[in-house]
Amino acid sequence: MRSIADAPVGIELWFDFASPYAYLSVMRIEEAAARRGLAVAWKPFLLGPIFSAQGWESSPFVLQKQKGAYVWKDLARQCRKHGLPWRQPSAFPRGSVLPARVALWGGGAPWVAEFCRQAMRLNFAEDRDIDTVEAVGGVLAALGLDADAAIAQACAEAHKPLLRRQTEAARAQGIFGAPTFMVRSKMFWGNDRLEDALDFAAGLAAPGPARA
Amino acid sequence: MRSIADAPVGIELWFDFASPYAYLSVMRIEEAAARRGLAVAWKPFLLGPIFSAQGWESSPFVLQKQKGAYVWKDLARQCRKHGLPWRQPSAFPRGSVLPARVALWGGGAPWVAEFCRQAMRLNFAEDRDIDTVEAVGGVLAALGLDADAAIAQACAEAHKPLLRRQTEAARAQGIFGAPTFMVRSKMFWGNDRLEDALDFAAGLAAPGPARA
Repeated sequence: MRSIADAPVGIELWFDFASPYAYLSVMRIEEAAARRGLAVAWKPFLLGPIFSAQGWESSPFVLQKQKGAYVWKDLARQCRKHGLPWRQPSAFPRGSVLPARVALWGGGAPWVAEFCRQAMRLNFAEDRDIDTVEAVGGVLAALGLDADAAIAQACAEAHKPLLRRQTEAARAQGIFGAPTFMVRSKMFWGNDRLEDALDFAAGLAAPGPARA
Repeated sequence: MRSIADAPVGIELWFDFASPYAYLSVMRIEEAAARRGLAVAWKPFLLGPIFSAQGWESSPFVLQKQKGAYVWKDLARQCRKHGLPWRQPSAFPRGSVLPARVALWGGGAPWVAEFCRQAMRLNFAEDRDIDTVEAVGGVLAALGLDADAAIAQACAEAHKPLLRRQTEAARAQGIFGAPTFMVRSKMFWGNDRLEDALDFAAGLAAPGPARA
């Protein structure tokens, strides 16, 4: 058996489909990771219960008016900087349970990365609801998948608890926002740390003496 | 008379001496601005009243336990990345009224930049209180200034209202955290936006057609 230390080093992206800064990372991570020879593990979860546990009834971008006013300007600038399409969502935060269930059910399947990007694009470039069978089904169908079967499976009683468990796992690791990158047990929070997280992972993956 | 549009473009750094992410920017900004031919305006203010207005009795790094646990690791990594000394302060957030009064009283004097760096260094590299006559006086004396006279002036009744007014001005502009960079009326929040803010300012300062 291989030990954990032998396992290939990758990067985990913990995100909520409702998070606009996670949109930036979801769109950018695969190419940036591939340049360093790293694999991405997609880890959708729900921020709502994490925020609730802090006594917040919504996103800090809603609850803190001045921060809220700022972040939409910042997001527009960040998208321009990274060459990503952007339209400020007319509803925020959007429900994100169904795309999260589908991505989580998909696990490590090859279509999951593109599914995540397309669902994020609906929310943050096309200003569309994403928590509907129509929206999620449309993305799945465009990927050549049997949308009805996938949604039925993802929402089946056997798979429903996955999302609550994933969100619990996020909280248990100390995750308090999104996007959050995990490399082995090291946490990097925020789209601004994507490159640092990848560089750290690449350093672990590189042959040579072990690094701290 | 010159209009505002003719005034040289610079960058304003709004900060609290208690803010660890502001420490990163205070240490880095002058060199980074000089590389782009930009002047820095130092704008000390107090975060306490800004946080209070949101109903917070302390820093979010204290109130939000999981975020608090994370940011100290992030700060250590960021300091390593930028080649800055770092020791996690044993008291947080530290009182910062006296250094703020002195820096504000100093205004655009040439010693203010180095004063700000040295006071920040005391807090975040040497784990020392900075809200004392001893600490602030020590920094001023090391800069060759008459420490007693400077502190007396900065704390005189005529100058005391400056800090409250500056903090009010921060809030009126929508500033909700530190460091915050202002370039004309554009706001950039957080040490991670220092380069973006400088690049934006440099774009405005460059000769050629006006830019949006």
